[in-house]
Formats: sequence, C-alpha cells, structure tokens
Amino acid sequence: MKKKIILAVNAGSSSVKISVYTAQLGEAPVQIAEGSLSGLTAPPPALDYSRRGKTVTKDGDVRDKADTQRDAFDVLLKAFIEDAELPEINTKDDIGIICHRIVHGGDFARPQLISDATYAALEKLNDLAPLHNANSLGIVHQCVSELSGARNVACFDSQFHASIPEHIRTYPINQDIARSNHLRKYGFHGISYAFITRATAKFLGKKPDEVNIIALHLGSGASACAIKAGKSWDTSMGLTPLAGLPGATRSGSVDPSLVFHYASDVGKLSPASTKELHISRAEEILNKESGWKALTGTTNFGAIAESDDPEKRLAFDLFVDRVCGFIGSYYVSLRGQVDALVFAGGIGEKSDRFRGEVVDQLRCLGFPAIDEVANRARMESVVTDIGKKEKGGQHVLVCKTDEQFEMARSCAEDEDFWS
Amino acid sequence: MKKKIILAVNAGSSSVKISVYTAQLGEAPVQIAEGSLSGLTAPPPALDYSRRGKTVTKDGDVRDKADTQRDAFDVLLKAFIEDAELPEINTKDDIGIICHRIVHGGDFARPQLISDATYAALEKLNDLAPLHNANSLGIVHQCVSELSGARNVACFDSQFHASIPEHIRTYPINQDIARSNHLRKYGFHGISYAFITRATAKFLGKKPDEVNIIALHLGSGASACAIKAGKSWDTSMGLTPLAGLPGATRSGSVDPSLVFHYASDVGKLSPASTKELHISRAEEILNKESGWKALTGTTNFGAIAESDDPEKRLAFDLFVDRVCGFIGSYYVSLRGQVDALVFAGGIGEKSDRFRGEVVDQLRCLGFPAIDEVANRARMESVVTDIGKKEKGGQHVLVCKTDEQFEMARSCAEDEDFWS
Repeated sequence: MKKKIILAVNAGSSSVKISVYTAQLGEAPVQIAEGSLSGLTAPPPALDYSRRGKTVTKDGDVRDKADTQRDAFDVLLKAFIEDAELPEINTKDDIGIICHRIVHGGDFARPQLISDATYAALEKLNDLAPLHNANSLGIVHQCVSELSGARNVACFDSQFHASIPEHIRTYPINQDIARSNHLRKYGFHGISYAFITRATAKFLGKKPDEVNIIALHLGSGASACAIKAGKSWDTSMGLTPLAGLPGATRSGSVDPSLVFHYASDVGKLSPASTKELHISRAEEILNKESGWKALTGTTNFGAIAESDDPEKRLAFDLFVDRVCGFIGSYYVSLRGQVDALVFAGGIGEKSDRFRGEVVDQLRCLGFPAIDEVANRARMESVVTDIGKKEKGGQHVLVCKTDEQFEMARSCAEDEDFWS
Repeated sequence: MKKKIILAVNAGSSSVKISVYTAQLGEAPVQIAEGSLSGLTAPPPALDYSRRGKTVTKDGDVRDKADTQRDAFDVLLKAFIEDAELPEINTKDDIGIICHRIVHGGDFARPQLISDATYAALEKLNDLAPLHNANSLGIVHQCVSELSGARNVACFDSQFHASIPEHIRTYPINQDIARSNHLRKYGFHGISYAFITRATAKFLGKKPDEVNIIALHLGSGASACAIKAGKSWDTSMGLTPLAGLPGATRSGSVDPSLVFHYASDVGKLSPASTKELHISRAEEILNKESGWKALTGTTNFGAIAESDDPEKRLAFDLFVDRVCGFIGSYYVSLRGQVDALVFAGGIGEKSDRFRGEVVDQLRCLGFPAIDEVANRARMESVVTDIGKKEKGGQHVLVCKTDEQFEMARSCAEDEDFWS
C-alpha cells in the first residue's frame, strides 16, 4: 500500500497546531513538518513553522489573516502547500488522512472515521462539553467540505479511559438520570496518556500491557491517571475536564455546592452561550475564571513556581498538595504495584522545582529521591529518568508527550482508515 | 465549685438525641441518662430512654406528641424531669449548661456561649449551611427563651478543622469573592474527630498532640480526616458537608459541572426553601436524592454490605474505592507518619465486611492485615485494635465515637461556661 500523508490537528481555544507525517500502514509515522498558530484569543496571532526539525518561521506575524480556528487551519495548510522544500504536499489532494483531537468522545472507545452519522454524534456531544469540543468541530466541518479527497478521523481525549471499571466511573446519583443524560466519569488527556504508556513501557523494556503507571499530564489543563496493565484504571477529570486538579483558569474539584454560594443566578446561561451551545454561568466561572490565574493573576505556572511572592507560593503549595493527593490515592488503587510515576505536559516537563517538591513528598510510598542533576538538565530524550538509582523497582520519569504523534500512530495502524 | 448538670443536644434532620451528664469544672463528665427521639421524618416517631446505662423505654410510641425537633426536645426534657429515679433533674432550673451540636460554625474555632450576638452570627451561617444548621437552631432558640437559668453553648462540627493550613483549605477561585462570601474548606464531623483523637491517643499511651491519625467517620454522612500532631490537617468535607465521600443520600464530590447536566433550572430555589433559607434545587438533588439510596434504594449500608445483589455490590465497591482514595491521599499528606487508621461512625463501627475490604487494600501502605476474629467480635471498649500484631508501628482501630460526651467534656473544661 502506498504511503500517505497524515495531518494531526490539535485545536485549542487559543491555538491550532498541525503536525504532518508520512506514514505507511502498520508502521510508525515520520514527522516532516509542524506548524502552530497561537494567540487567537490574545492577538496578534503568531505563526511558528518548522520542517524536518528545523525552524522555518518563528513568531511570524499573521495579523488580519487568522481570527478563528478555521482561519488558522487555512494559514497552516497554505504554509505546507507553498513550502517548496516540502514536496510531499503540493496540493490539498496530497493529504490522505486528517486526524482531529476531540476532547469529549462520549462512549466512543476508539477513533472514528467521520461520516455524516458520526458528525451528528459529535455535535450531540457538544451538550456535554460545550466549552471543549466546539473549537475542533469547526475545523472538522471545514476539512470534510473543503478537502474532499482526505479521510477525516476523530481521536478522542476520553477514549483511553473507556477501560475505567464501573465502580470507579459511576457517580452515586439517580442512575436512571445518569443513564439518560450520560452522566459518568469519562476522563480526558487520554491521547497523551496513550503516548505516555507506550513510551514508558518502551523505556522500561516492557510491553504496554505489562506496566502500571501513575501519570500526570500537567499543563494549563491538568490531570492524573492511574494506568493498570497499560489501561486506564482511574483518572482525575470526570464528566467534563473541570473535575480533579486545578488548572490555569479551572478550579478543579470543589464542593459541588460552592458555585451556588459564589454568585446568584449561576444556573443561568452565560452570555457566551449560543443557540446551539448552552453554557451556564457556573461552568464559565469554574472553567474560565478560576485556577491559578484567580489566585495569582498569571496563567504562567513557570513564573509561579519560581516566585516567593506569598500568593504564588500559595498557588504552588496548593497544586503540589492536590497532585500528591491523587498520587497517594492511585498508589492505593493500584495496590502499590507501580512501575513508574511519570510527569508530562508543559508543567510536568518543564518545572523542575515542582517535580522536586512532589517527589520529596512521595518518599513514604517508596519512590526514589530525585536526582537533582537529572531533574535540572535539559530533557533530550522522549523519556528521562530523574530518580536516584535505589533498590526497589519504582521509577520517576519525565515524558515529552506528543498527542499529534499518538493520533497519527493510531491512524497509521488502523486498516479501516486506509481502505 | 458546685456540680452542674450538662445536657448535650444532637439534633439531626430526623432525630434528636440528648445525653445528660453530671460534671465538675475541669473533670470528665459522667453520663446519667440518655434519650433519643427518632423517625421525625418517617412517622410514627419513637422514643428511646435509658438511665445510668439501663434501658427504661425502647421504641416508645410518642405519636401526636413530636412532629418537630422542638417537640422532640420537649418530650425528652419531660422524660428526664418526670423520671423519679433521676433526682438530679427535678425542674428545668436544675440544668446548668446546654450544649448544642451545630454543623457549620464558620470561622468559630471553639465553642461559643450563646448570646444575642452569637445567635445572630449563627443565623447568618444558615446561608452557608441551609440544609444543616436549621435543625439545631430551633432548639437553641427554644432553650434560650424557655430555660432561662441555663447557659447555652454552641459546639461546632467545623471548629476542630480551624487548624487546616491555608494551602489545603483554599479553593482556587477568585479570592475577593472567596473572602467576601466565606468560601473555603471548613470541614465537619469535628466533634467526633476530637473525641477520636483523645480516645486514640489514650489507647496508644500518648498525648493527643503526639498522634498522627487517619480517621474515618462513616455514617449516613461520611468523611475522612488527616490528623497531624492531634490537629486537623485535612478533611474530605468542604465548604459544606456535600464534598468528599458519598453518604446515604449525598453524592459526595462529583464534577462540579454535573448538576447542570442533571436537570434544567438546578440553580432555582427548591420548593423546600423558605423566606430565610435559600436552598437551590441542585443542592437538594446532591444532598438529599443521591448517595447509596440512589444507587440501591436503601439508606441502610449494613444491608448493602451483606448483599451480593449487583446494584448493592456496586455501591459497596464504590464506597470502598472512595474511602481508600482518601486514605492514600492523607497517607502522603502526613508523609507516611501515621500511628493509626481509625474507623468510627455507624458504618465504621458496625460493618466488619467493609472494614475488612478497606484494610485489605491498604497493605501496600504498611498497615497490618486485619485480625478476622477481632474484626468480627462485638466491640466492648471505646477503642478496639482489629489489626494483626505485626512489626511496624501502625494500628488499625475501631473507635466508638461519642459526640455528646465530647461536647459535654469541652464545656466541663471551660471556665467561661461556669462563671
């Protein structure tokens, strides 16, 4: 079978990233280019473009060209097509598969080829994740209508968590309403956790289904995951990404009564709602107006971690406490059978001070002390061991997670998307 | 100073319990009688009355005499006064101190003598705990106006948790609103945790400020508490008793978005609201219509624990999972320095199957295996060790907690309430 070009599209509220791969069915895809357009909600937007690992454009000014996610997709696609040194893409028709990161996949347990039927199902999921899925769906719609030669595949952040057992995913609420309204723990960041699982297993010289991991994907959205025999066993996010750990603007788990004491009329629709998308004021407060932004004024956790300002120390200590809480909880849930604690995501990969503080609190679980030199060094590999070599089999690792690669990989190994 | 009679009043939504003590300033109070009136929300109400440890009335029929908490107080007071074999109370004027269990004490860090000023402060707290404080305040009002010779003292379920450090008690939300609306973790069941701390320390031959404990108060309301050097360090309930573990009709922590997907208009006031008390439909759903009642149809956890019916197994496994999660979390928060895991409350004291399952999952934290014989035996003492004797210093204990005694004790040792 002929090689295909795979585009892996990762659209957030403020940015769109696309990685381009050449792929052969059943083989690991090879990245040939990567573009990202950021600052959509904080103009001017900036374009970064690299080809075969080399920077071509850095902070390119694309003002007036990209106001929306769909514009951003156009700008990036044009960059790939017009790049003379990227002969693999000369026209839209050279693109074989476009895989899209979709946050909430409901009951879908694997990637879905996007047909009219699945598109309708995806639109329905907007009811459960109005703040999260809409960014991606605009681009999906655009690709289906404008790149008719390509196959579009939806990869879900929730699909990795389809293995969570019933007693963990169930909320103790009226079960008729839970069933009819689809109310259960779904979990997110699953594309990243799938990557982390494979990368960790490879690093440890094991098969993915032989490893137990406590994984932390800590970025502006943050979650933890207990992985048992390579599969998700529990995760900190829930019905929506709001539950669990706090994030840049997200409260994480708070007393479910809290928001009713925060402001009056929180059940009403926010002005950000549209005819199709219903967002309560409460969900907006807890998703967009909370987190360490609310505690410190900045969403930059790096700045928080390095500061001794009391407000920033509070945010730092609070986050360490909540993260360590989930690690302790998952350690018990995995009955102490843990091969590795893995840090990933922007904060997990970058903040050595944060990692140092967390690992220091975990000595009581038998994790090794941190190796200060390895912890502070620039991480060159996909997986780096930052624990001191001690007796006992537990590792403390940092993983440079790669959601776009994981999406392209899952498309490259699935014959259904090639025929 | 002359001995005083102390009444310790514990009013719930469906029952009122009163324990009667003789007390000397600075000495442990001695119980001389105990009465309870249950079934207020599931008539006919029933009276139980015992004197000096001996049952006088069991399941006494008091229909038409007790519809409300205030009626119940009258019935119980009358039982004490009219009992010829309880000469310590012949008239209302024989009562020196009445201490009242109040669920939400806001920022109060110790018991409060109830004056006009504190009563107004207590009424204000109803805004934070409309479902929880109102039961008690009716009786407080009645005692202040009808038993003018007695001093009334408010003992708060939240006061034990005043020691929780800032980074644990803070919610990552807008801090101006948090301050003005008093939004932080308060924690509850603190009267019970204070009792458990003293009883456990005594059992271990230590002073209260020398013990680290993970304590579980598991009843129809359930919570966990990390106790460090005798003081609360963290607890699972939050701004209100809703957060944390599920209970008989309470969901515990769920994705804060969940209730907005459960029903429309959950932000509106419930029909149970009054002009003074504002209860959102959401809080009513999550406090009164969830928990294991919603999963299984019964609030009787004993029946759930003994059944192999799939719905009941699910509720049992779910509760074990959530309880073990908090234990793992608090083990890390206490850096592994834990003298004892302590079970208390109706479920904690009675369900050997539940205790067995939880302890079995904790072997990885170094807790001893359960001693099957001790676990199944009738608990005669205030504290019973149910762990096998193994090397290592951690104990697994059951504590017959006694909130009324703890309230009376704290009144007996405080000179302010005697002068």
